[in-house]
Order: sequence, then C-alpha cells, then structure tokens
Amino acid sequence: MAIKVHGHPISGSTQRVLATLAEKGLDYEFVFVDLATGQHKTEPFVSLNPFAQVPFFEDGDLKLFESRAITQYLAHKYADKGTPLITHDSNKMAIISVWTQVEAQRCEPQASKLCYELVIKPMLSLPTDEAIVAHQEEKLSEVLDVYEARLAQSKYLGGDFFTLADLHHLPIVNYMMGTKIKALFDERPHVNTWCADILARPAWQKVVAMMKHR
Amino acid sequence: MAIKVHGHPISGSTQRVLATLAEKGLDYEFVFVDLATGQHKTEPFVSLNPFAQVPFFEDGDLKLFESRAITQYLAHKYADKGTPLITHDSNKMAIISVWTQVEAQRCEPQASKLCYELVIKPMLSLPTDEAIVAHQEEKLSEVLDVYEARLAQSKYLGGDFFTLADLHHLPIVNYMMGTKIKALFDERPHVNTWCADILARPAWQKVVAMMKHR
Repeated sequence: MAIKVHGHPISGSTQRVLATLAEKGLDYEFVFVDLATGQHKTEPFVSLNPFAQVPFFEDGDLKLFESRAITQYLAHKYADKGTPLITHDSNKMAIISVWTQVEAQRCEPQASKLCYELVIKPMLSLPTDEAIVAHQEEKLSEVLDVYEARLAQSKYLGGDFFTLADLHHLPIVNYMMGTKIKALFDERPHVNTWCADILARPAWQKVVAMMKHR
Repeated sequence: MAIKVHGHPISGSTQRVLATLAEKGLDYEFVFVDLATGQHKTEPFVSLNPFAQVPFFEDGDLKLFESRAITQYLAHKYADKGTPLITHDSNKMAIISVWTQVEAQRCEPQASKLCYELVIKPMLSLPTDEAIVAHQEEKLSEVLDVYEARLAQSKYLGGDFFTLADLHHLPIVNYMMGTKIKALFDERPHVNTWCADILARPAWQKVVAMMKHR
C-alpha cells in the first residue's frame, strides 16, 4: 500500500487528512503514533517531521507534514477520484483558497484555544480557565458572524459544492459540538445548517468511527 | 487596468501581494487605504473584506481578500508570466505547500508578535514588552533551527528555485532585519544566505522603494 498516515485519532490535524482520504476513497495504512508516551518527540518521528507533530504522511517516496499541505496534495494528485474538493476554474479556486485561509488564519486560532480549554484539559484532569473561554468565545463569535453572512449567500464556504475549505473545519467543528460552544453555532441558522450538513458526510462519519474505536 | 490592490505599504500582507505582482511583472492600480484614520473599518471597505483588514484585491470581477489566497491566485492564473513561483509537478508542488504552511502556521505567528513589539509599538510611541520579546525570540529560534536544517539541504524552502514559500516570508524577514532579531537570522549561515538572496530580489526592492515613498 503506497499511502501511509502516521498520526493519532484524537489529533484534529490527523483527522483532517483522514477525512480527505475518505472523501477521495483512497486506501491507506494508518500508523498509530502514541502521543501519550511522547512517541512523536522521538526518532524516527522527529526526523520525519521537524516540528515533532502528527500527522506525517507518505505516498510512495513523497514524504509530507503539515495537514493542510497534505490535503491539498491529495485533492490535486487524486483530482479524478471521489469528491472533487477543488476545481480547475482559477477564479472559483481563488474563492476556495480565500476560505481555506480564513479557516487557518481566523477560525482555527480562536477555536483551537477553546478546544484546549474545553476538550483537552478535561481529558488531562486540568482545570478549565473560564476567563480564556469567555475571551475566545467572543473572538470566535465575530468569526462566526462572518461565516453566517457568507453561508447566507453560498451553500458552502468555497462556493456551491463541498470543498477543502469546508473539510478543513471538520475536526474543530466536531469537537466544539461536544462543548457549550455548540450554542454559538446553533444560534446562527446558516452556520447551523452548514455544520449539520458537513458533519453528516459519510466520509467524516468514517473518521468519527475510527476515533471511537481507539 | 484590471488589477487593483487596496492596501497600505506598511502592511506586511499588502507587501506580500505587491511582491507577487512585481515578480509576475503585472501592472496594477494601488488604492491607498488609510489605516491611521481607520478607513479599513468603514464602508465600502468592510463590505469588501468582512475582517476589515488590508489588502483587498480585484482582478476584473473577481474580488479577493487574505493575502496568501491572492498570491496563490496570481501564481496560478498568471503561471506563464514572470517568475514561476509554483510548479505543475504535483509532488514538487506538495513540498512548496508544506513550506507555505510552515510560514503561515509556524513562522508568522511567532515573528509577527516580535514585529508588533519591536517595529509597530515604537512607531506608535508605545513601550516594548521585553518579556514578550524574550519569549518570542526563543520560539522563533526553534523555528529558525528547522529552517537552517532545511536550507542546508535545499537552496530555497520549497526546492531548488524561488517560490511562494520563500516570497511569503519577505515582509516579516525584512522587518526583522531592522531589529535586534536580525542576530537570530545572521547566526544561522544557511538562513543568513537565504535572507540576503530573497531580500535582494529586484521585485522585492520595488516594494521596499514603494514603502519608503509613503
């Protein structure tokens, strides 16, 4: 088997890559990296990813890290397989890129801090800092106001079909749904519809099943 | 003239787009947005960019924000003009994407905090927080260690030719060169050579001249 993903099912970045592989209908080998014992900070992993984080990806001789670079590679390399996720129309692709950047630059930095406080810390029996939560909730609300306006005009963030711009959000949106932050998504009708739509995708449900299995 | 950039010469994101246009040898109209008077937070600008930040970009009917989406669009749409900046080889393009992600996710978040403390605050007559500087210096050093290892093996970050992965760093590297953080770049020989190389590019020098002119 040519494609290998080294990662951990709890890692949002790993999930982003697995969701892309599932949308593309590609076979792959999953190599479990034990984050609990710090395996990602030891050899041979640190030689594979200099930032010592999951996922690490192989497709034959090609070796990649950074989840959003891996999803882009898969979307382009396997353009004709499974869900398109991108388009060859350069103007439409530019709009997809805008919203892919919005996810990485505007949404994830706010939402990941909430995820740490409300999902990861409880797992580690650490106390949640409610001041950080309140601050980040306000920041994320501002971002979701922009999403609500966008999704009132467009079924998906990147246009009228599901693309990488939507897919990249799946791990963090899924985690937020299990916290009180779900209310921020629910109270915005177009954001709410979009979340329900993308979370229900069979490819994402495969990733969710894999997370539960571990 | 079809291409318009609404921005400010002091904005690193604006500079990133201008550097790409200069590398591509494309004509454009520059529309000055007065950040000092908060023009970016008023109409019509907030309708053009929902995050109320520069730059905003137009190419005919296509309207974009997020600087890295704009540079990607220009590199793909005008692939045959000027400096290539990308490649059609999907494996080589994947490596360029990895290092483009590293810039956005690893380098910029650390360096931009240093830029705020050491460049922007002095401009605004605000006191620099040396504790933040020391902390961010350590964080940026870790990133530059990875760059040093990469550039020891590859002339440019994305491979053997200058690409978007290098270009995206120009604004922040240029700002750092005017601060004490320059030492972090200087003490790493391959990083030092890379910085001198990319900063000397005629396209970047055009952007620098434009910054001085304002």
